Amino acid sequence: MMKGYAMLSTGKTGWIQKEKPVCGPKDAIVRPLAVSPCTSDVHTVWEGALGDRHNMILGHEGCGVVVEVGAAVKDFKPGDRIMVAAITPDWDSIEAQEGYAMHSGGMLAGWKFSNFKDGVFGEYFHVNDADGNLAHLPDNVTVEEACMLSDMVPTGFHGAELADIQFGDTVLVVGIGPVGLMSVAAANMRGASRIIAVGTRQVCIDAAKGYGATDFISYKDGPLDEQVLKLTNGKGVDKAIVAGGGVETFEPVINALKPGGKIGNVNYLGGGDYINIPRVGWGVGMGHKQINGGLMPGGRARIERLARLIQYGKLDVNPLLTHKFEGFDHIEEALFLMKDKPRDLIKPVVVIER
Amino acid sequence: MMKGYAMLSTGKTGWIQKEKPVCGPKDAIVRPLAVSPCTSDVHTVWEGALGDRHNMILGHEGCGVVVEVGAAVKDFKPGDRIMVAAITPDWDSIEAQEGYAMHSGGMLAGWKFSNFKDGVFGEYFHVNDADGNLAHLPDNVTVEEACMLSDMVPTGFHGAELADIQFGDTVLVVGIGPVGLMSVAAANMRGASRIIAVGTRQVCIDAAKGYGATDFISYKDGPLDEQVLKLTNGKGVDKAIVAGGGVETFEPVINALKPGGKIGNVNYLGGGDYINIPRVGWGVGMGHKQINGGLMPGGRARIERLARLIQYGKLDVNPLLTHKFEGFDHIEEALFLMKDKPRDLIKPVVVIER
Amino acid sequence: MMKGYAMLSTGKTGWIQKEKPVCGPKDAIVRPLAVSPCTSDVHTVWEGALGDRHNMILGHEGCGVVVEVGAAVKDFKPGDRIMVAAITPDWDSIEAQEGYAMHSGGMLAGWKFSNFKDGVFGEYFHVNDADGNLAHLPDNVTVEEACMLSDMVPTGFHGAELADIQFGDTVLVVGIGPVGLMSVAAANMRGASRIIAVGTRQVCIDAAKGYGATDFISYKDGPLDEQVLKLTNGKGVDKAIVAGGGVETFEPVINALKPGGKIGNVNYLGGGDYINIPRVGWGVGMGHKQINGGLMPGGRARIERLARLIQYGKLDVNPLLTHKFEGFDHIEEALFLMKDKPRDLIKPVVVIER
Amino acid sequence: MMKGYAMLSTGKTGWIQKEKPVCGPKDAIVRPLAVSPCTSDVHTVWEGALGDRHNMILGHEGCGVVVEVGAAVKDFKPGDRIMVAAITPDWDSIEAQEGYAMHSGGMLAGWKFSNFKDGVFGEYFHVNDADGNLAHLPDNVTVEEACMLSDMVPTGFHGAELADIQFGDTVLVVGIGPVGLMSVAAANMRGASRIIAVGTRQVCIDAAKGYGATDFISYKDGPLDEQVLKLTNGKGVDKAIVAGGGVETFEPVINALKPGGKIGNVNYLGGGDYINIPRVGWGVGMGHKQINGGLMPGGRARIERLARLIQYGKLDVNPLLTHKFEGFDHIEEALFLMKDKPRDLIKPVVVIER
Repeated sequence: MMKGYAMLSTGKTGWIQKEKPVCGPKDAIVRPLAVSPCTSDVHTVWEGALGDRHNMILGHEGCGVVVEVGAAVKDFKPGDRIMVAAITPDWDSIEAQEGYAMHSGGMLAGWKFSNFKDGVFGEYFHVNDADGNLAHLPDNVTVEEACMLSDMVPTGFHGAELADIQFGDTVLVVGIGPVGLMSVAAANMRGASRIIAVGTRQVCIDAAKGYGATDFISYKDGPLDEQVLKLTNGKGVDKAIVAGGGVETFEPVINALKPGGKIGNVNYLGGGDYINIPRVGWGVGMGHKQINGGLMPGGRARIERLARLIQYGKLDVNPLLTHKFEGFDHIEEALFLMKDKPRDLIKPVVVIER
Repeated sequence: MMKGYAMLSTGKTGWIQKEKPVCGPKDAIVRPLAVSPCTSDVHTVWEGALGDRHNMILGHEGCGVVVEVGAAVKDFKPGDRIMVAAITPDWDSIEAQEGYAMHSGGMLAGWKFSNFKDGVFGEYFHVNDADGNLAHLPDNVTVEEACMLSDMVPTGFHGAELADIQFGDTVLVVGIGPVGLMSVAAANMRGASRIIAVGTRQVCIDAAKGYGATDFISYKDGPLDEQVLKLTNGKGVDKAIVAGGGVETFEPVINALKPGGKIGNVNYLGGGDYINIPRVGWGVGMGHKQINGGLMPGGRARIERLARLIQYGKLDVNPLLTHKFEGFDHIEEALFLMKDKPRDLIKPVVVIER
Repeated sequence: MMKGYAMLSTGKTGWIQKEKPVCGPKDAIVRPLAVSPCTSDVHTVWEGALGDRHNMILGHEGCGVVVEVGAAVKDFKPGDRIMVAAITPDWDSIEAQEGYAMHSGGMLAGWKFSNFKDGVFGEYFHVNDADGNLAHLPDNVTVEEACMLSDMVPTGFHGAELADIQFGDTVLVVGIGPVGLMSVAAANMRGASRIIAVGTRQVCIDAAKGYGATDFISYKDGPLDEQVLKLTNGKGVDKAIVAGGGVETFEPVINALKPGGKIGNVNYLGGGDYINIPRVGWGVGMGHKQINGGLMPGGRARIERLARLIQYGKLDVNPLLTHKFEGFDHIEEALFLMKDKPRDLIKPVVVIER
Repeated sequence: MMKGYAMLSTGKTGWIQKEKPVCGPKDAIVRPLAVSPCTSDVHTVWEGALGDRHNMILGHEGCGVVVEVGAAVKDFKPGDRIMVAAITPDWDSIEAQEGYAMHSGGMLAGWKFSNFKDGVFGEYFHVNDADGNLAHLPDNVTVEEACMLSDMVPTGFHGAELADIQFGDTVLVVGIGPVGLMSVAAANMRGASRIIAVGTRQVCIDAAKGYGATDFISYKDGPLDEQVLKLTNGKGVDKAIVAGGGVETFEPVINALKPGGKIGNVNYLGGGDYINIPRVGWGVGMGHKQINGGLMPGGRARIERLARLIQYGKLDVNPLLTHKFEGFDHIEEALFLMKDKPRDLIKPVVVIER
């Protein structure tokens, strides 16, 4: 038996006892070294994003140490310190072969932790396809940093990939929570020139400046499209990354985009029947404003690539880590902090062991 | 003075007399050899698609013979038989340099004929940037075929480009009017395997089969997404080309698309405030279902490329040409045929001179 | 024990007895229904392409029926009729995650049959990662056709992918053996207009015409570049697929290519120290003539895609199958036919069971 | 008449008097504000790179003030301070429409300054297609910085584009002269993690570190491929940018590249018959090691994009500018400095007027 912090049912959380996960031939069992709660955990528990779940251990951001591997696992062994992404695809699936591993087994089904199985907020957690989904934790990456590589970095960076940032692009980034901040960093790291960020909390604005944002606007000052068009002499932006807001956010973003522009959405859209794309702003169907939205890619190669950015000093995720806890028992406190989102919070992390 | 068939005001058309167009240093003046009315002409006149216009000569599909060129024109001279696309960009614009010439001067502003200036239904018409927008009419391309290269072929083919068809793709093509038929042909010519076409008119179905469609469904038999999912064992299609319908068409198309799928819209969306993208079908923002929509690329290189498909026997546009007229005076009759759209019509063409 | 036709040592082949292959947890054991020898088998045995090998069963083109699967295999069971590609990657490898599965485990190491393990010319053969590398044989694909899907179709088609064929391209295809013929078909199916093929054997020329070649040239009539430039009024071709020749072939191909052109090589280059790229023809390093060369992609999704082209009537591989044998014992005869390459041969196939 | 510094014949330079250039309807005449000599000028004069030329004014890097425009020019007028790229394409050409404007009129023929016409080292210089090739000099870009935007920045950055740098890539940059330094900066700005630079001069190494290089190797310490493979535990690099060396440089670069890797060459290859691509290192034709080489894109949109990187503080080109001169008459001195390349030189610039 093991202990874990779980969603008991919609709107309720608590510590539970559960069977330790079983290790299949391709799998690994991991003991967490550090974990971090995510806004998605909040959506899952309090907004019913995944529907009702009972006694499901939460958490999909963390790193750990391997305690057991299946017979078919080649590259990892007990004792190895590892990173793991929130998305752990089945790498022999058709979807993975077609380039969309995150949708292996169905749309979004590469997301397994605290969705189809228990998450990382337990004394142990299970990783499918260990050779394809674990990565060795480099010596010069801390356990806190590794937690940011599970979801915040890959999700934020995927926004810049989906928006296809090119040298000199003017980029709009909607939302500067931890994911949006990583989108700012990624846009900057793909060669954007001007980065117009939407957000108001000072702690986020300060971090965004450090990551490369050059201008800030706020919903409070009027429609986003009007503000962006004013800042750009009526030309609009080349690209947009959506890392916040809701279905209604797409209207001003489309309007603020040049013909030939691209949107990269990495934001979970929790409500509303339709994403409203304005007919006229979208060029009556012919404006070449490409709309992309996608779940982050997971897996080993990806997390190793992103970790290298930290290893070689190209990316510093520490400005995200505003609140740190020491000890497994602080998971609950960290989760509620994420739920309550105080004005000085970007991201909490719980270090269990170094 | 010259004669032309014009939009007099919204809902009204007729023959008018006008000044012959003036030739600037980079321009050419052309006498049409054949022209073809387009559904867009119908939208322009009777649906007010471009707003009100007065005494504007209609038409953007045609070929002709050069009668005058400006001093800076290098590759064309009076007497040259030429093809010209419906879209005639300004090739030294920023937008053209960025790869979106059709939006030179503003979104959709590469479309000049019967939009910002008189169209091709006159005794003479004006072509801007002649070296960039004219192309020599090959001996083995007829004037009727050349008319199809102005808009039907490049628009339909752009649908397949926007949808990024790959070998073996299962493709949904919504609409099998002349543009949709060219999208079927283009999907087939990019290596699609199964092509599911949406349409009911027999003349179109027959043509679509010839162009490579393998399955047919109809709005009359229920929601498109249900029919497509049934045909594909619940898996959906890899790609979709939208060449018909309205803003509401996007909902079933998104639902029928696999994660990682792409939509290429080349359909003018005439009404409605929003293109409704279903939130859940779009993977709550993260399904990697890319939405593209764009005006056809115009210009010389493009029309030469597409003409080569006819020249080398890879594409036969004659099945589109269900109704042929001989003589300039038949333009009115051809336009009204397009407006009334009898069940045996695909596309009318008016041959003025061979 | 089982029987197989093997490379005994360099230059020597013969029937041998060997242990039946062992099935690991992710693997399958398959009994062949049909197999086909490949020029690569000839290279392997008589040209020492892979170095010396002893008692290695030959063959990498075939289809079969599953006789055993490992405990972790989900989608296949004994009795299933299957297709399998010549290249069977490890799908959880870094290389596969990065998009180059054919190089999983090292450059070209996705090629396992008759390279790192016994091939398909045995009574049984072993398939690694069965869920990722097997595909169900559709009812309307014959066993002979399925053999062509192992290597000839995917290799030839990859040439067109590497050369990035676009609508209206003029394409040079060097070599019209079975792979080159599939490159012609693939170029045609990606929208090439003019296809200039290099080859002289009548059986191949006839097949190439059927697959879409429009012009033929021969090494016997002078340098390829001169012939191509003459045919194209000095402009050269947009793209080139290399499916024959040697390291020296690249020089005329580069010279015949327009700036902005691309080469897709799928030809095994058996000798010579260097691929000679002409400095001046390559624009003194700055001509934007992209040089690509790659091993075919393998795996399940790929073979299913290509099989759909046969299923939906878009591709007919039967013109390749000039010589058919019935019975396992004819493998030797078929291989020597491939080695001797009579003038009426394109490809032999051995049907063992239907 | 006007004065200019010219190539008199191969190996000889000097001041000459020449007719002031004539302004066509689409052209502009510009008076230089600052200019910079380039290694290409050295190649042109002393290595006969372009063949013999007589009394041709040198120089292709500079910025200036418009003194005259043709009747068809819309966006510029006398008195405008402008930037201009070394490459000034014909934007209505087929090549430009196909995406390769730098080859408009023939391979490399977008390069006109000091190649097909007089360069910028005169009291006045001529710019073709002014609307397409000039760009307004922003207030916060100095004339020295603008000179770097003519060639060093766009050429260096094109190397990173050709090599298709992705997040986390390990990148080899061969050569850290001014172009190579800009390739380092560009690789860094596209998200490279580790950047291994080849070079030995201290001034360049210092600048390269500032631009993001993480490791340095030298030809003096043995074969490049051996050094790179050693640094990367035998794995090799993901991408390589070649900004120095000769035809022989490609061999170690290919050997140091992973399968699936890409090379972007922006180096002028001045001698040798062949670029030697090693057959085995290139995977006997099938290793998916893509070889790209291309002349920098020119034109207005491009220079505006790159200038924005300076305007928004993302790129600082001042570390390149090791030697500054004031006054038109110092052009000769600056050119000979470039020819002699003292150990502390990266790039000289001559400011004529601010």
